[in-house]
Amino acid sequence: MNKTILLEKRPVGKPQLTDFKFVSEKVEEITAGEILLKTVYVSVDPYLRGRMNDAKSYTPPFELHKPITSGIIAEVVASKNPAFTKGDLVSGMLDWKEFQKSDGEGLLKVDATKAPLSAYLGVLGMTGLTAYLGLTEIGKPKKGETIVVSGAAGAVGSIVGQIGKILGCRVVGIAGTDEKVAMLKSSLGFDEAINYNTTKNMVAAIKEAAPNGVDIYFDNVGGPISDAVLFNINQFARFVICGAISVYNNTELPKSVSVQPFLIKNSALMQGFIVFNYVEKYPEAMNQLSKWLADGKLTYRETIVEGFDNIPQTFIDLFEGKNSGKMLIKI
Amino acid sequence: MNKTILLEKRPVGKPQLTDFKFVSEKVEEITAGEILLKTVYVSVDPYLRGRMNDAKSYTPPFELHKPITSGIIAEVVASKNPAFTKGDLVSGMLDWKEFQKSDGEGLLKVDATKAPLSAYLGVLGMTGLTAYLGLTEIGKPKKGETIVVSGAAGAVGSIVGQIGKILGCRVVGIAGTDEKVAMLKSSLGFDEAINYNTTKNMVAAIKEAAPNGVDIYFDNVGGPISDAVLFNINQFARFVICGAISVYNNTELPKSVSVQPFLIKNSALMQGFIVFNYVEKYPEAMNQLSKWLADGKLTYRETIVEGFDNIPQTFIDLFEGKNSGKMLIKI
Repeated sequence: MNKTILLEKRPVGKPQLTDFKFVSEKVEEITAGEILLKTVYVSVDPYLRGRMNDAKSYTPPFELHKPITSGIIAEVVASKNPAFTKGDLVSGMLDWKEFQKSDGEGLLKVDATKAPLSAYLGVLGMTGLTAYLGLTEIGKPKKGETIVVSGAAGAVGSIVGQIGKILGCRVVGIAGTDEKVAMLKSSLGFDEAINYNTTKNMVAAIKEAAPNGVDIYFDNVGGPISDAVLFNINQFARFVICGAISVYNNTELPKSVSVQPFLIKNSALMQGFIVFNYVEKYPEAMNQLSKWLADGKLTYRETIVEGFDNIPQTFIDLFEGKNSGKMLIKI
Repeated sequence: MNKTILLEKRPVGKPQLTDFKFVSEKVEEITAGEILLKTVYVSVDPYLRGRMNDAKSYTPPFELHKPITSGIIAEVVASKNPAFTKGDLVSGMLDWKEFQKSDGEGLLKVDATKAPLSAYLGVLGMTGLTAYLGLTEIGKPKKGETIVVSGAAGAVGSIVGQIGKILGCRVVGIAGTDEKVAMLKSSLGFDEAINYNTTKNMVAAIKEAAPNGVDIYFDNVGGPISDAVLFNINQFARFVICGAISVYNNTELPKSVSVQPFLIKNSALMQGFIVFNYVEKYPEAMNQLSKWLADGKLTYRETIVEGFDNIPQTFIDLFEGKNSGKMLIKI
């Protein structure tokens, strides 16, 4: 039988296991032009939370009682499509199913001999593209500038910081545990890192870690941490607004310090970043990321949980910061 | 004798007359290379409020017990500088004094035969440049798009709206009285205008006035009005953050709806605009504004108060929205 995970209820606040429903169905038959895929790795990402609401956004909301989709690596186990052969490995936006069929549209073949399979959901997938393109297209870092990254130990943040260092910037990470802070400095080369859970005065802590002020803020979290950055920005600062995980589960509209007066005083820019708007830049970005990875200039971290049944809980754990780097489920 | 207005105290909240001090001194003697100027028109502008605080900003704060400066039109009444002749009219950032000397640096000669003198502080001065360059450099309007302007009956806002119409956009103004709203629609060609003082649900009112959503928001006011615009933005919306008059007098940090989730969902951009960063674009902008003015495509409104002694009160009145268009004092 073939397990599938449906969105049973739209979460109110933090997602609960009861918002998801497991169903079993027969593995579908494939017809001409189709392939049968067996899921190997499933990516869980904060942005999926937004799609669970019934609200207009850059991607349409998930439908109730339908499978959830996310980035998945799958193996072709049967093919009636000449473009695919049994044993091929592909990456794409696919359903949370053990097995599913596809016409191959939108799937990208991946090469397990060039990089570990899981990397194609992380540093060589949307995660890496988001980090690279968000930082370069909106942040536009110049050598010697200071970059602050929130959610720095997360999938995107940990890559942003490393790219910042490769490009010659001072990089300050913000994360939620001492272990993460230590890892950012010792393993990922961040110049400074701040544990927001144990720091009383974030404004002062950022000032100390970024004595020349903040030129780029790569924002994965929103909320009070982002407010504190505002007090430390330089003229012409750029804010890459990539995520707001701290408020995704809010049931009321979050309020913050008004950013507008800070933007005026500093001629600063704040821009929402969605990687899907930069499709034409993917090849260049992928090329650069693969090169840095091959040269050992870029490392990545993963938190891999085993078992299809653990997908919902693993997704929920994202909001507790239980991951270090990319959060994945291996089936 | 020669009257001068000093900043006597840094205002707390709304400026008071007691924050200013009038002193009299003798008219200074000029030496070689200098000119003596007699003030003709004084511009009062919301941004001056920021300079009255002792806080880092894009221009240094005014010094206590020193004259306040703003945009001024003056007449050369004596000259020992070969570049200027008695009777010349100039525009520049000058002190709030009846008479003052200058070495001529930073002064621009203006031609009273080409446009009324006061226009050189308004539509052909910083005000017009701010409207034109803010809208075109950050807003980047495309024909058919919808522009919302707050402070629409103010000096900058009233020009922004007219330029929006010239460029083929739908323009919605937000202002604070029924008279202003009527004027925006009848005299300035705005498609719609909203009185925020009598409108209970601003989100709904903006939605009705901008049925295709908001592509550009030219923000002169900040605060709750700007919050309401957020709920109506389109994908790739641009926010020109030009002013925040609604919060300039706040003594506590203003709080607003968090903008970051809206920016992410809509891949939207928010950028602080200071006209002084675009000096290299002034000639092109001035040229365009003069042309539109000469062609009768652009009109401007002024609120002119007479008398040097009325400068502080006129400045204070800006925050009550007592002006329609550019607020000036004629000496």
